[in-house]
Amino acid sequence: MQIATPYLMFLGDVPDRLAAKTAYGIADWRPEWCIGQMRLPGCAADLGIPDLTLQEAVAEGCRTMVIGVANAGGVLPEHWVDEIVAALKAGLDVASGLHVRLGSIPAIAEAAEANGRQLHDVRHSDQTFETGKGTPRPGRRLLSVGTDCSAGKKYTVLALERGMRERGLDADFRATGQTGVFISGRGVSIDAVVADFISGAVEWISPAADSEHWDLIEGQGSLFHPSFAGVSLGLLHGAQADAFVVCHEPTRTTMRGVAHKLPTIREVIDLTVQLGRLTNPNIRPVGIAVNTQALDEECARALLADLAREHDLPATDPVRFGVEPIVDRIVAEFPPSNRAASA
Amino acid sequence: MQIATPYLMFLGDVPDRLAAKTAYGIADWRPEWCIGQMRLPGCAADLGIPDLTLQEAVAEGCRTMVIGVANAGGVLPEHWVDEIVAALKAGLDVASGLHVRLGSIPAIAEAAEANGRQLHDVRHSDQTFETGKGTPRPGRRLLSVGTDCSAGKKYTVLALERGMRERGLDADFRATGQTGVFISGRGVSIDAVVADFISGAVEWISPAADSEHWDLIEGQGSLFHPSFAGVSLGLLHGAQADAFVVCHEPTRTTMRGVAHKLPTIREVIDLTVQLGRLTNPNIRPVGIAVNTQALDEECARALLADLAREHDLPATDPVRFGVEPIVDRIVAEFPPSNRAASA
Repeated sequence: MQIATPYLMFLGDVPDRLAAKTAYGIADWRPEWCIGQMRLPGCAADLGIPDLTLQEAVAEGCRTMVIGVANAGGVLPEHWVDEIVAALKAGLDVASGLHVRLGSIPAIAEAAEANGRQLHDVRHSDQTFETGKGTPRPGRRLLSVGTDCSAGKKYTVLALERGMRERGLDADFRATGQTGVFISGRGVSIDAVVADFISGAVEWISPAADSEHWDLIEGQGSLFHPSFAGVSLGLLHGAQADAFVVCHEPTRTTMRGVAHKLPTIREVIDLTVQLGRLTNPNIRPVGIAVNTQALDEECARALLADLAREHDLPATDPVRFGVEPIVDRIVAEFPPSNRAASA
Repeated sequence: MQIATPYLMFLGDVPDRLAAKTAYGIADWRPEWCIGQMRLPGCAADLGIPDLTLQEAVAEGCRTMVIGVANAGGVLPEHWVDEIVAALKAGLDVASGLHVRLGSIPAIAEAAEANGRQLHDVRHSDQTFETGKGTPRPGRRLLSVGTDCSAGKKYTVLALERGMRERGLDADFRATGQTGVFISGRGVSIDAVVADFISGAVEWISPAADSEHWDLIEGQGSLFHPSFAGVSLGLLHGAQADAFVVCHEPTRTTMRGVAHKLPTIREVIDLTVQLGRLTNPNIRPVGIAVNTQALDEECARALLADLAREHDLPATDPVRFGVEPIVDRIVAEFPPSNRAASA
């Protein structure tokens, strides 16, 4: 499954920015794909890109209308269905991050069929996977892991993709969540895969590659999260990570949605190495990425310096201070051969 | 979902015993539910129970026809469809362990609808789960874990259910695989659950119970298996196991389906305790169950004695030598109060 780009971003009439979180993530990381937006009366979100009609979007070269918004109650409102049908008739594919499958709505299924358009439900993979094999495959792989869910794992690998490419390295972001799938146009929402195929799906997401190519794999959950540790472990085993970055949110005390306290960064490093060795005996940490949003700059810099010293690893806030130190460490630990550029 | 009992066992025309493995497992552990079998011309399997027509099965009180066989190629043969439709018309529910969903075959879906009968696809759960919460819940729980897949985890907890009940303990087998679901009439094939809900599904399978009640939860995979460790970890966290038994097949050198070597029993004990503590800080091993089928009796007894000494745990082959020593250890470690019987 490859989602055709560029995109027309459908925002519907969502009541706030948060409901359009996925759309903002796409616009942040793939502005060149986000040609325009379509908003219905009452929409409280605005990506700051041109408002286009369907006809204008097609004329501008859009290939897919992206529903990057959450709808209340999980039911697709009738007036959204009308817009989706109109988009299909106008010649656009439609890709959705909604829980409901587009194809389960007869009017949408019929319009896609009649107009020869693709429907993509990124929360639901129709891809058939094999079970993971754990066999070493060529190429280099970095996985972002976390002390918790929602600790910056997607953002970190996207920032690393940008930073490593700027350094001349051959690196690709590999998506394992719905926003990431829109951003890369490809990938699988790993938490929606049937349990037996978690590691196999990751092997599929990040296949054998050139020996100096880096796959930067978006992590999910945490090995310490009682709801999702199984997903995180299958992801770690499937990724066969050579390197990992620990993502952390320093103001959180309990893990999201449960009463369990946050593990320490040291605990996450140790357990990731211990368990990751099953499929890659040389796995090692290459950095710590901290979301310092809640701290003033002085506090943030002091915290990062402390963490760097304590763990002997580069520590940075990718948003605020960039990923340079982590890229430096990657280059030092995994030196590119002469044919790869070096800054 | 509760499958109505007793069962008429449908064996179709399978070419060998192995294809009817599930049916044999059900007949072994729930002979009182297996009133009769239905075999088509050419069937190479025989459960050693009466061959019944549909009318005879209904007259004998059967409530569900169980398709406990594997069909070649995953396609349901036309002549099986005819028998399933006839069973529905005769007043039986139908429960299947096939990959294909019964309801996806129009003739079967229509017959179920028209006759008000239930269809159960035990490989596919339509149950909606919540994500696991990791909150302690009352009741005692034992999980079987393994050095590999197919190492006797289902058999061990079924044998423990029998042995503990004989000792007057209140104990229920909790199924996490398809054969187990038929044996308990309830449960979920955990490997078919969407990845985000592994631990949540186990919390559902084994809900809060009386403080002295034991749930004996069927384990899956192995924490050391690169294909399935995520499932095993989610299962461990959801089970919040107080106790676990390590299941082992001593002649195996590599794990099923992959090139990885088998972990030691010690490694399995240590990692299960380390990771299990996240949701139950008091988790502990209470025995080792070894499949000694490939060893003569002297070798088997010597191996078990060695393992018991090395790990300071009861070690037995549940099939060959019974589960008494493990039940003894459970009673010693978790003493029943006076109101529970004591043998």
